[in-house]
Amino acid sequence: MMPLNKQTFVLFLLTATLLWSSVAGGQQKTEDYSRYVDPMIGTHKMGHTFPGATVPFGMVQLSPDTRHLMMYDARGQYVREAYRYCSGYQYEDSTIFGFSHTHFSGTGHSDLGDISLMPTTGILELDHSDTGQTGTNLHSRFRHDTERAEPGYYMVTLDDFGVDVELTTTTRVGLHRYTFAKGGEAHVILDMMANIYNFEGKNVWTFLRVENDTLVTGYRQTTGWARTRTVYFVMAFSQPMTSYGHRKYDETPYKGFYRRFDQESSFPEMAGREIRAHFDFDVRPKDPLLVKVALSSVSTAGALRNLQRELPHWDFDRIRGEARQQWNRELGRVDVESLTRDQQIVFYTALYHTMLGPVVYEDVDGQYRGLDQNVHTSDGFTNYTIFSLWDTYRALHPLFNLIQVARNTDMINSMLAHYDQSVHPMLPIWSHYANENWCMIGYHAVSVIADAVAKTNWETGLDRALKACVTTSRIPYFDGVGEYMDLGYVPDEASGSSVSITLELAYDDWCIAQLASQAGNDALYNRYMERSRSYRNVYDPDLGFMRPKKRNGTWREDFNTMETHGQGFIEGNAWNYSLYVPHDPETLVETMGGPEKFSRHLDELFEMELPDEFIARTEDITRDGIIGNYVHGNEPGHHIAYLYNWTDRPWQTQARVRMIMDTMYGPGVNGLCGNDDAGQMSAWYIFSALGFYTVCPGSRQYAIGSPLVARATLNLENGNTLVIRAEDQDSENVYVQKVEVNGKVINRLHLEHDELVSGGEIVFFMGPEPNRTHR
Amino acid sequence: MMPLNKQTFVLFLLTATLLWSSVAGGQQKTEDYSRYVDPMIGTHKMGHTFPGATVPFGMVQLSPDTRHLMMYDARGQYVREAYRYCSGYQYEDSTIFGFSHTHFSGTGHSDLGDISLMPTTGILELDHSDTGQTGTNLHSRFRHDTERAEPGYYMVTLDDFGVDVELTTTTRVGLHRYTFAKGGEAHVILDMMANIYNFEGKNVWTFLRVENDTLVTGYRQTTGWARTRTVYFVMAFSQPMTSYGHRKYDETPYKGFYRRFDQESSFPEMAGREIRAHFDFDVRPKDPLLVKVALSSVSTAGALRNLQRELPHWDFDRIRGEARQQWNRELGRVDVESLTRDQQIVFYTALYHTMLGPVVYEDVDGQYRGLDQNVHTSDGFTNYTIFSLWDTYRALHPLFNLIQVARNTDMINSMLAHYDQSVHPMLPIWSHYANENWCMIGYHAVSVIADAVAKTNWETGLDRALKACVTTSRIPYFDGVGEYMDLGYVPDEASGSSVSITLELAYDDWCIAQLASQAGNDALYNRYMERSRSYRNVYDPDLGFMRPKKRNGTWREDFNTMETHGQGFIEGNAWNYSLYVPHDPETLVETMGGPEKFSRHLDELFEMELPDEFIARTEDITRDGIIGNYVHGNEPGHHIAYLYNWTDRPWQTQARVRMIMDTMYGPGVNGLCGNDDAGQMSAWYIFSALGFYTVCPGSRQYAIGSPLVARATLNLENGNTLVIRAEDQDSENVYVQKVEVNGKVINRLHLEHDELVSGGEIVFFMGPEPNRTHR
Repeated sequence: MMPLNKQTFVLFLLTATLLWSSVAGGQQKTEDYSRYVDPMIGTHKMGHTFPGATVPFGMVQLSPDTRHLMMYDARGQYVREAYRYCSGYQYEDSTIFGFSHTHFSGTGHSDLGDISLMPTTGILELDHSDTGQTGTNLHSRFRHDTERAEPGYYMVTLDDFGVDVELTTTTRVGLHRYTFAKGGEAHVILDMMANIYNFEGKNVWTFLRVENDTLVTGYRQTTGWARTRTVYFVMAFSQPMTSYGHRKYDETPYKGFYRRFDQESSFPEMAGREIRAHFDFDVRPKDPLLVKVALSSVSTAGALRNLQRELPHWDFDRIRGEARQQWNRELGRVDVESLTRDQQIVFYTALYHTMLGPVVYEDVDGQYRGLDQNVHTSDGFTNYTIFSLWDTYRALHPLFNLIQVARNTDMINSMLAHYDQSVHPMLPIWSHYANENWCMIGYHAVSVIADAVAKTNWETGLDRALKACVTTSRIPYFDGVGEYMDLGYVPDEASGSSVSITLELAYDDWCIAQLASQAGNDALYNRYMERSRSYRNVYDPDLGFMRPKKRNGTWREDFNTMETHGQGFIEGNAWNYSLYVPHDPETLVETMGGPEKFSRHLDELFEMELPDEFIARTEDITRDGIIGNYVHGNEPGHHIAYLYNWTDRPWQTQARVRMIMDTMYGPGVNGLCGNDDAGQMSAWYIFSALGFYTVCPGSRQYAIGSPLVARATLNLENGNTLVIRAEDQDSENVYVQKVEVNGKVINRLHLEHDELVSGGEIVFFMGPEPNRTHR
Repeated sequence: MMPLNKQTFVLFLLTATLLWSSVAGGQQKTEDYSRYVDPMIGTHKMGHTFPGATVPFGMVQLSPDTRHLMMYDARGQYVREAYRYCSGYQYEDSTIFGFSHTHFSGTGHSDLGDISLMPTTGILELDHSDTGQTGTNLHSRFRHDTERAEPGYYMVTLDDFGVDVELTTTTRVGLHRYTFAKGGEAHVILDMMANIYNFEGKNVWTFLRVENDTLVTGYRQTTGWARTRTVYFVMAFSQPMTSYGHRKYDETPYKGFYRRFDQESSFPEMAGREIRAHFDFDVRPKDPLLVKVALSSVSTAGALRNLQRELPHWDFDRIRGEARQQWNRELGRVDVESLTRDQQIVFYTALYHTMLGPVVYEDVDGQYRGLDQNVHTSDGFTNYTIFSLWDTYRALHPLFNLIQVARNTDMINSMLAHYDQSVHPMLPIWSHYANENWCMIGYHAVSVIADAVAKTNWETGLDRALKACVTTSRIPYFDGVGEYMDLGYVPDEASGSSVSITLELAYDDWCIAQLASQAGNDALYNRYMERSRSYRNVYDPDLGFMRPKKRNGTWREDFNTMETHGQGFIEGNAWNYSLYVPHDPETLVETMGGPEKFSRHLDELFEMELPDEFIARTEDITRDGIIGNYVHGNEPGHHIAYLYNWTDRPWQTQARVRMIMDTMYGPGVNGLCGNDDAGQMSAWYIFSALGFYTVCPGSRQYAIGSPLVARATLNLENGNTLVIRAEDQDSENVYVQKVEVNGKVINRLHLEHDELVSGGEIVFFMGPEPNRTHR
C-alpha cells in the first residue's frame, strides 16, 4: 500500500474527477465509492466474509467455495476445520469447488451454499473428493493473482480447466460468464450435494427438471441450522446444451417404474436426496457461455418470474454496471474523507459489509415462504431474512436507523411477520430462510424494535409490536426465561450461559419498558423496568464480578473470571460480561465502586495479560481479536471502550477506540480481527470512525468517542444532510478537545439522535492530549 | 344370504318405501341405494379394496390399516407379502395399526396411507412392531363383528383399548369419533412414519406444529411410487389436549440449537424424517373425542381453509348423513332392479367402487400442487388425480361418459393440465398426487380423450387435446416408442413387454386418428391410422399368435404362448393378448382364420386347462380370476368375451359374459376375483350387467352382451332417462332373443351411443337358448 499523507489524499478526493455514472431513470450522478471496497477483507482466518458478487442486501450472494467439507468425520466427531468455512471461502486455499448462490457474511455458524455451479472441461467426472487433490475433474486450482473482487463483481481463472469465471448479480439472480481458453466439450456441473456445513443427511430432497435445452428448474431442501429449508431456482444458459445427465448418490431400495428409463442420461426429470447433474456444451474460445440462476423461496414459478423481471437479457456488463451503481448509491449515503487510502478502504469495506445482511427474502411479486412453511405475501413492506440479532442489535440496526431507515423499518416488519407465523409465538432470535435456528441468547428483536421506535418515525403498529415483544419475553421454555421470571435470574443449573442470559434479558426488558412507556402503558413499563434490574441479582459484590448463581441463591463455587464457556457465560468471560448493563451504566459504575475505581478496572481489562489457555477455550476468537483481556472479536464487549465516558476519565474512551480501530481493523484479507458477524463488527467501525457509538440501543443517545474520518457527509433519507468534521484530525490527535453542533459547543459526552438527523454540522476539535474539562 | 326369488324381490323394490332423505338445498328425494353397498367386498385376498369411509371421488379416503409392513427385508429383498396391502387392509387380519386418510382402491401397486391416527389408552408407547404382537401399545386387536362399513361411514371397536372408532368424511376432511369405554388418560398417536408400501427412506420429511391445544398443522413428504409427494394437513380436536410430544426415530449428526429445548415433550415444533407424535387427553366414558383431519396438496393454510369450509362444526352424525346422501345421489344415477338381493349388492358395490378414483385433488379454492411441484389453480374445472389409465380407459372412463360426463370432462381437463405441467411433455400414464409413476404401458390418456370426444359434447379445446395426444405419442425414450415409430413395432430387445406395448400403442394410435379426423386433419388421420395397424407387425401367422419380434425382423425363439412375463407380454399371455386389437376386430378375425376358426379359438381359450405353473408366474392373479386360460383378474382380456360378436356364434358372448359375472363377482369379502384396479373391474361389471360393453373406447358403439339386471333406469346428466329392461330375465335365460330400441327391433350386435343418451327404452328379450338369427 502506498501511504499518502492526509493533505495529499484529501486533495485527491476533492479534485479528482471520479468515475461518474448516470443512474438509471434519473439525472443523479454518483461517485464510484465501490473502488474503495475490497471484498477480500476478512476472507482470511476469522473474518468469515466472502469475496463473491452481490448487490446491497441481495438475496443472491454468489461466491466461490474453496472447500466442501463434511462437518462430521466417519466416527461422527465434529470436524473443527468446518468452522473456518462459514462463508465457504478461506483465502489460503488454492482450490475452488464451485460457485454457489447463498452465503452468510461473517457468521460463526453456517448453512447455505446453495446451487453450486462449476464449469469444467475435459473428461466429465462427477465423483467428488473434498480434499482438493488434483485428478478429480470436479474442482480446480486457482491463483489469487487471477482473482478480482469488487462490489457486484467477482472474477477468477480456473487453472485446471482454463476457464475465466466472472460473476455478477441482481437482487435475486446470479449471472455467470464463463470464458473458455480452448473450444470443445465443456460442462457445467450443478452440484446439489454441495453445502456449507454439510453432513450426512443434510440434503433432504432435490428435484430438477430440464425444461428445454437452455432452461433448468428445480429445488433443494436441506436440514441443518435451518431445520426445514427449501430453495427453488431456475437456471438459464446462453446457448443450448448438447446433452445432460446426473448421478444419484443416495440409495433407496425402491426404484419404481422410473427404472424403465435411462434416467442418468438426458432424461429431463431428476429427483432424489443426493444428486449431481451435468450440462454439456460445445464451446468456442473467447465466446463465453453465460448462465443465469434465479432463486425463490416460493416455487420454481416464482424463481422464473424473478428471472424474467430482473434479468431478461444477456448483457453481463450492463448487470455488472448496474450492481456497481447500486453499491455506489448505498455507499454514498456516507461520503467520507479519510486520512489515508487504507482508512478509506477499511471504512467503505466496512460499510459494504453492513449491507450483506439481512437480505431481501421475497420474490418480485412479494411472495415468500414463511416460518410456518406457508407462502405469504409482504403487504406494504419488503420482507428480509438472516437476522443475527444477538450480534446486530448492538450497532448494525442502530446504524440502519441512521442511514437505512426504510430498510430497517422493513426488517422490523419482517420480524413482526415472523412473529405472526411463529407457533410459540416469538420474535426471531436468530432466523434465516423461514427458520428459527435458536442460535445465541436473549430476545434482542425487542432492542431493534425499541431502537427504531425511539429514533425514527416508526409509530404505526406500536401496540402490535409491544404485544409481540411482551409475548416473546414470556415464553417460559425459552432458555431459562421461566426461572428468570420466577427468580429474577437464570440459575446456574438451568444453563451454562446463565449470567450472560440474565444480563441480556435485563437489557432487553429495559427495551420493552421503553416501548411500554411510548405506548403509555405505565403498569407494563414498571413491570419491565423491574425486570431490567435483574442484572443486580447476578452481581457478586464480594468478588466484584457478575457470577453464576444457583437456584438456592448461593454463588457457584467453581468459577474463574477469565473463563468463558460452561460457567455462566458465552463468547465473553466475567471480565467482559460484568460490564454488560448497557441500559444503566451509572448504576453499574456505582455498584462496582464508583467512577474512579471503575475506570481503573477498565484499564486493567485492556492492559492485563490473558493467558493463552483462556484464548484457546474461547469460541470464535484468536489472539488477533484481543487487547489485554478485552475481546473485540466477539460482541459482548463492543460497548466497553465507551464506558470510560461514565467515569472520571472519559478521554480514555477516545484513546481506546482509536486503538481498537487501528489494531482490530485493517486493509487486506486479514483485516477483520474476528467474525464480522453479519456486519456487527463493521457497524461498530462505522460508528466509531464517525466519532460516536450506541452504547444502549433503544435510547436516543450516542456516546462520543474519537472520530477517525477527516470529514463525513451523511445523506439522510429525510432529505437532511449531516456533515461531520474532525478538525486537526491526525493519527496523533486522537483526543476530543471540544464538540460543536451547528456551531454551538456541547458540554456533554453524548450526541442526541435529533442532532444527527436534523442535519447540519458536527465538528470535533481534535488534539494530541485529553481535554480534561470536556465531559 | 337369504335367496329371494325374482318376483318377490322386484316387488319388494317396487313397493317398499325406502329411506328417503331430502337433499340439502332442494326438494329432490333420493332412495337409499347405499344400503346395497358393502364396502367389505373385495377386502379379502386380491380385490385390494378398502373398507373405510369416503364420499364419491373424495380426496380423503379414511380407512383402517391392518399391517404396517416394510416392503424390503433387512437384506434388501422385496417382501412379497407387501403386495397384499395395496389398500392397507386385509380381511383376515385381526390387528389395526391406524386409520389413515389416503388409499388406493383396488390397485396392484401402492403408496399413500397418509396421516395415520390411532387412539390408545393406558401406557403411552411409541415404539412400533409390524408383527401385530400384543404388548405393544400402538396397535390393537379387533373383531369383524364390531366392524360396520357403509358408504361414508366405518366403525370398529379396538379391543385392546376399549375404543369404538367411527369414521366419516367430507371431500377433503376426515372426521373421527372415538368413544372410550373407560375414562382417564387417552392418547391419539399420529404416526407420520406409517406408510402403505413403506421402506427405509420413504419418509423424506415431516413437519408438525401444535398451533394451540386443539389444533395441529403439518405436512409429510414421501418418495416411492410417487417420487416427490407432499401431503399437508390440519388436525383439530374436539377437546383440548393435556400434553403432547413426539419421538424422532431418525438420526442426523447435526442437532443445531434445538438441542436447548426438551423437544420431545410439549414443544410445539417438530420436524425430521421419522416422527411419531402423541397427543394426550383426559377422556370420559361415553363422551367421545372427535378429531378432524383436513388434507391439502398446497399448504397447511390450504388444509385449514378446507377444514373451515367443509367442516366448521362437530356434528358427526350430520356429516355421516351428508356423506350417505352424496352416495345416494351418485348411486342413483343408475336405478337398478336385480333378480336377487345379492346381485343388487354386487351391482351397487361395483358402482360404489367406480367412484373411489380418480379423486378430487384441489383445495376448496381450486389450488393444487401440480406435476412441476408448483401450485396451480384449476380454471373452470375441478382437478382430479389417481389415473390408473392402463386399467381404466377400458370401461371406467367409458362408463363415466355415460353416467358421469361432467366429472369425466374434468378428469380430461386434469390430464391436460398434467400435460401442460409435464416436462416431456406427456399426458399421464399412471399418475397420482402430482406425480407420474410410469406404471404399466401405453399412453391410454389418448383413449380417454378420444372416447369423450366421440361421445360427449367435449368439443372445446380439441386442437389442444390433439396436440397433447400427438406429442405424447412421439416421446422416443418412452417405453420403446422410438423404435416403434421406426420399425412399426417395439422390438423384443427393447422391452420384456414388447408385444403388449406394440398392441396397445396401435390401439392408442387409432384413438389419435379419430381425434385427427374430428379435427379435420386428414394427413394426421392417415399417419395415425397407419400406426394403428402396427399390430400386424407382431402377428406370427405360422404360429397364429402375436409374438415378440427382434430388431432384425425375426421372431423370438424362446417363447411360450402360455407364459406372460418377460417374453413380450405383461399381465396377459399370448393367448389373451393376441386378441387385443380392439379397434379392428374384423381384421383380427380374418387374420386369425376367419369367424369360425376364431370362435373356436375363443372357446379353446375359455375351456383349456392352464397349468398351475403359469398362474404362479402371472402377476396379480390367482386361480380365482381365471376361466380356462382366460384371465378376468387382469385387464388385457376384458373385451375378449365380447369378441364372439364378430364371429359366427355371437351368442357365446352372452353365455360367457353371464358366466363371468356369476363366477368372477359376488357378494362377501372375497367378491372380487382380482384387483379392482381403480374401478375397472367394477366398471366392466356395471356395463355387462346393463347388457353391453365398450370393446373399443373411442368408438360410439357398445357390443351387446347379456344383461343381468331386470331393469335399470339411467338418469343422465343431459336430462334424459334411459330405461333398460330385460324381459323374461332369469338366471337360465341368458340369451338375447332380440333387442328393441324404443320399440323398434335392431338387427345388429351393438348399440349406438346416441341410442343410450337420447333416453327412451331399450328392451332385451331374454331366453334359455340362443337366437341364432339375432346378429
